[in-house]
Amino acid sequence: MLCVFKAHLILWASFIRYWNMALLSKTEFYQQTLAQVKALITDETDLIANMANISALLFDALEQVNWVGFYRVHNQELVLGPFQGKVACIRIPLGKGVCGTAVTSASTQRIDDVHQFQGHIACDATTNSEIVIPVKLNNDIIAVLDIDSTSFDRFDKDDQQGLEAIVNALAYNLAQQQTVEY
Amino acid sequence: MLCVFKAHLILWASFIRYWNMALLSKTEFYQQTLAQVKALITDETDLIANMANISALLFDALEQVNWVGFYRVHNQELVLGPFQGKVACIRIPLGKGVCGTAVTSASTQRIDDVHQFQGHIACDATTNSEIVIPVKLNNDIIAVLDIDSTSFDRFDKDDQQGLEAIVNALAYNLAQQQTVEY
Repeated sequence: MLCVFKAHLILWASFIRYWNMALLSKTEFYQQTLAQVKALITDETDLIANMANISALLFDALEQVNWVGFYRVHNQELVLGPFQGKVACIRIPLGKGVCGTAVTSASTQRIDDVHQFQGHIACDATTNSEIVIPVKLNNDIIAVLDIDSTSFDRFDKDDQQGLEAIVNALAYNLAQQQTVEY
Repeated sequence: MLCVFKAHLILWASFIRYWNMALLSKTEFYQQTLAQVKALITDETDLIANMANISALLFDALEQVNWVGFYRVHNQELVLGPFQGKVACIRIPLGKGVCGTAVTSASTQRIDDVHQFQGHIACDATTNSEIVIPVKLNNDIIAVLDIDSTSFDRFDKDDQQGLEAIVNALAYNLAQQQTVEY
């Protein structure tokens, strides 16, 4: 079955990734991770399933992260979607916190120290840095990818570029579909 | 904010749970966990968000489990929903594997050794035992809660009873709503 093949592909790729981790540059790491994301979501139209598997893949692959997941834009709010990590805030107003700001500014928010971010919403007090990337469909932002770390300055420009490419792959998948339910 | 209050409630309850774990019977453990689930999902109508937070809470609370999550019934298939653990199979036909059998039999499947289960779908080769509980709305099964363990015989009758009470709390939450999107 295709799903079993994909699971085996990911397990095999994970083994190779751990084996080569010390040898990989950050650029190469994100190239490999992007290829794995594409292998997972290509031909799969269910957005929730794709968000769930991307969260799992990134949570497993990224070091020093304590939360990876999605919030979906519903009725002028962000609503919790699939994620990996501890229990999370369910609803966030647009414009509030790092996630809400990513939507209203329509841009990635890369925050080295969340405690310095005006209006930061502390779902988990152990989080110190965060990156939030909007998921765009046509001209709308329909969700955000949110990643937290207990380390300060966890995400640099290379992380941002690599993670934006992964979000773009999800957006491309969505753009191929006639209707999107989320 | 309410979400921050709920997150603090869960963090506090988690601390108490770890502190008392050695003193708790399994029945008491599930009573406490059920109370936490109810605190999380009461007044929250988004099914995906509730599935995501229940998965996180159980994955954090249960020992010896490697995967906790939901599959949703869509168009005569099970489709991956929110979960915690490694990347998973996306689509499972009704009647196939432990999850598909839970739907077609409309009953909890508690499997001490998945390798002895006819037609077991091995998303993760390290899994040795599994429990799958249907989520019922009126007379329909709309999803299943699936929990895997690398241990054999991980789930006994007390686990089944405790986890079924948690699934019933989610079903009760759904039954209070006029429309359910999943």
